Parts: sequence; C-alpha cells; structure tokens
Amino acid sequence: MKFALLNGQRVPEAEARISIFDRSFLYGDGLFETLRVYRGRPFAWAAHWDRLQAGADRLTLRLPVSAEQAWHQALDLLRSNGESEALLRLHVSRGLGRRGYSPAGADQPTWILSTHPAQPQDPAQPTRWRLSTSSWRLPAADPLTSVKSANKLLQVLAKAEAEARDCDEALLLNTTQHVVEGTSSNLFWIDRGVLCTPPLSTGALPGVTRAKVLELARELGIAAEERKIRSHQLPACDGVFLTLSSLELVPAIRLDGQALPESPMTRQLHEAYQAATRSADDH
Amino acid sequence: MKFALLNGQRVPEAEARISIFDRSFLYGDGLFETLRVYRGRPFAWAAHWDRLQAGADRLTLRLPVSAEQAWHQALDLLRSNGESEALLRLHVSRGLGRRGYSPAGADQPTWILSTHPAQPQDPAQPTRWRLSTSSWRLPAADPLTSVKSANKLLQVLAKAEAEARDCDEALLLNTTQHVVEGTSSNLFWIDRGVLCTPPLSTGALPGVTRAKVLELARELGIAAEERKIRSHQLPACDGVFLTLSSLELVPAIRLDGQALPESPMTRQLHEAYQAATRSADDH
Repeated sequence: MKFALLNGQRVPEAEARISIFDRSFLYGDGLFETLRVYRGRPFAWAAHWDRLQAGADRLTLRLPVSAEQAWHQALDLLRSNGESEALLRLHVSRGLGRRGYSPAGADQPTWILSTHPAQPQDPAQPTRWRLSTSSWRLPAADPLTSVKSANKLLQVLAKAEAEARDCDEALLLNTTQHVVEGTSSNLFWIDRGVLCTPPLSTGALPGVTRAKVLELARELGIAAEERKIRSHQLPACDGVFLTLSSLELVPAIRLDGQALPESPMTRQLHEAYQAATRSADDH
Repeated sequence: MKFALLNGQRVPEAEARISIFDRSFLYGDGLFETLRVYRGRPFAWAAHWDRLQAGADRLTLRLPVSAEQAWHQALDLLRSNGESEALLRLHVSRGLGRRGYSPAGADQPTWILSTHPAQPQDPAQPTRWRLSTSSWRLPAADPLTSVKSANKLLQVLAKAEAEARDCDEALLLNTTQHVVEGTSSNLFWIDRGVLCTPPLSTGALPGVTRAKVLELARELGIAAEERKIRSHQLPACDGVFLTLSSLELVPAIRLDGQALPESPMTRQLHEAYQAATRSADDH
C-alpha cells in the first residue's frame, strides 16, 4: 500500500483527504516543491527547502516543521513506500480559515509529503523535447514569479496548449516578449561556447537544477551568463536544453516545428549533473 | 448539522473532504462563484452561471452539471441547511489527473456547493470601507483576469496587506498604474453626476454586481461610463463605492487615510439594487 504523510500522519494515499475549505483548494494559497530522489535520498534538499522557506516568508505562512524534521519525514515515507528512485513532493497550504481572501486566523497549515514514480532516463533513448512557443504570457516583474506557489493555472493552460500542438513543453515568454522558461523547467541555450539562461528578472522561477547547472558550468570552466533572448533567435544558437529536478537536463530538438541543433555541451553538463547526484550523500 | 454538496452527495461539512491530489489543491486549477441568497433563492443566478461557464470554456473544463441541475442542487442544499439569507459558494475543480501541469486525462471534475452566513446590512450602521492602495499590481491585459479562478494568491496577499494597514479592502492597481478593483469587489466612483467604473481592459473581473449596477444606472437615467483613473484622483471625486454580491454596495470612506466624500448617488443605487433583490423571483 502506498502512503502519504498528512500533517505528520502516515495515511494510505487513497484516504489522504483534506477539507473542501482548505485554502490551497479554494485559492491556491499554498506552496510546493518537487524533488528527485536518488538511492532513497532527496537530491538538493537544502536548495529546495530554502526556496520553500523563502516562499513561506513571502506568503507570511509558517512552515509547520523544520527542515530537519521534514528530511526525516521524507526518508521515513520513502522507506514506507519502498521507493529509492522516485520523486518527492512537498506541499504546504495555509489550511483552514474564515471565508474570503483574508488569511487572518488561518494559522494551522496543512503539510503534505507524497512520493511519485520517477521517469529514469534511458541512456539509449534519452528524453528529448519538442517545444512550442506559448500564446500565454507571464507577467514581467511579477513579485510572485519567484515563488513556487499553488497558483499554476497559466502553466496548466500553457502545457495543455503545447500538448494540443503535439509538443512536450511550452516555451513561455513574458509580456515584454522575452523568453522566460518552460512551464515546469528552466531554459538554457548555448551561443558560441557560452552557456546562457534568462535572468530571473524576466520572471523565471529560480530553479534548483538551473542553479546547479550554472555552478557545474563554472566548475567545468564553461563561460556562463544570464541573457535576454527572443524566441526567434533560439534556432540560430548551438543547442537548447531545459532543466527540471525530475528529468535533470532535457535537450530541446524542435521549436515550433523548426529543428534545433544539439550541442555536445548539453551532454557534458548532463554527465556532470548525474555525477553530482551520485556523489551527493547528505543534505 | 450543516451540509455541503460534494459531487452531488450531501455530506456533513466536517466530512466533506477531497483528495490531496485534487488539482484545485495542487495548482488552483479550478473556478468558483459566490452568490448572495435572498429568501432562499440565489440572486443573479444566470449571470453567475454564465461567468462560471465562460471560465470553464477558457480552462477547457467540463462542468459536471447543467445550470438547471445546479439550481436545484442549490435550493436543496439551502433547505437542508435551513438557510434563506446566506451565501452560496460554487466550486469546480479539474479533479484528479496525472502528476504535473498537464490536464490530460483529468476529466472527472470535483463539484462542490456550500453555504455560508451572510452579513446582512444593518440600515442603522451600514458597512463602510477604508481602502488602502495595494503594493501588489495586477497584470494588465492578463487573459485570466476575466476568469474567477482558484488562483487568488495575489488577492490573498493584497487583502492581508490592507488589513495590516487597518483597512477593510485593498485598492488594486495594474502594472500601468491604473485603478482596477478591490480584491473581491469592483470599484465605482462618481464624477460630477457621472457614474464611473474601470473598463474590463484594465484587468477588472466582470463582476455580476458591477453589471447590475450599470444596468440600474441606465434605468434610473444616471449617466454611466467606463473610465480609467489613477489612485490619487479618487479623493477629488464625489463618492466612491465597491460592489460585491455578498455585501451589495459598500461606500468607501477613506483611501490611504484620506477622507473620501460620500455621494447620495451611492445610496440611490443601493436602494435600487435592494429593490431588485426583492423583486427577483426566478433565475
């Protein structure tokens, strides 16, 4: 039987239920994180926790457990579910409150951990994505774009649009028409040996894998910088890839039907990333 | 005992629970409406339903019941709960799906009706609001602002900010610094006999009460128009009020600590509105 952890209680997933008046259900008044688990241990725990804590500060929402407590809850749940290669999802909601938007009095957050199947990369057939430029625009300079909140309707609709176009991921632009990210991934491209990614000021989520790739590039002596780019400029660069915890680095092979070149740097960075996941043994 | 209606089943509120994987909980992937109930009947049912249906179309989400079925569910629930002066809340979520933003396969929406206490206006002490200009900005020209979705984090944070400033409601501006609305209310002001409200193009939600007030103004021979305005211009006008189904028309008496004048037109429109709620006897 598969379990979830609901406010510290281990509950069979099918019985893990919350009130219809929970504020994450009513208003998306909550936060979440998704981590890749390797050999039973969530990778980049501290970075994910820091982002969750920053989001909680922004929402003036009190996390009901410490990072240390949550880490042990995660390991326990993974053991209960017998999962070592998996995804771990953390979700905190502001919980119950009085009717209406005011969060006053809603001070018992709902705290949930759940595990999900990972899709391990098959080395013989690595995941490659076809991208479609979304018709949805992220607000530029929105103070909530840096927060991984439960307000993800735009991402839901952009993802559906991309799939309707027989693509795997949407390329999201902001209202100033600059490239920002995918719906659940950050974007990188390689321009004459320089690794590039949009600055967070475009509205990009501060991705944990994004930060790790930038760090690895520095260690490998690869020049890396944040740059603004327009969608139509991407096919002229030397390679494009997306980053996300669940799938690591994913080369983009098409954008709006147009072929994108593949760069050996993508593979080099992906190998360095996988080496980092193997050598990580603590949080 | 108080009941809610969960997917057509009458359930005690305390037992009305949904999965931790419901998409309205995970992503705010849902819609809602709040209606005022007078003498056991939800007011302006058709207008609220039309907005819900338009939102569902926008989200490509199938409403699981017809307007007629929902109407009868609402009347039944109000009778069960013994409520005739109340609020009725409708909530539809995309329900369960596979992990991630893609709504593919999530085709069993969660459908909820609940009732809540109304705060009837005391004629001797009518509600009056102090407004505070929010530091949060609504994205101008966001295609989702016309949808009453469960992505309301900005409204939650703006409301909390207003309350921290000892005010009742936040005045939200958009990214072009034009006045848009309150967090749960539309805004009107009176300028030399003309009733004014921001155009929907500012990002204002197409409020049902807003539309009703504009209709009543026409019937009363009051000139009414949509206008853009800056926050600092409001204190110089002849009166400001907010509209929302639950509280009807609410005069604003202060903005950022500055007194706002009160206009007899606000009372005239409110009396016409209350007369309309009394004469409505069908949906």
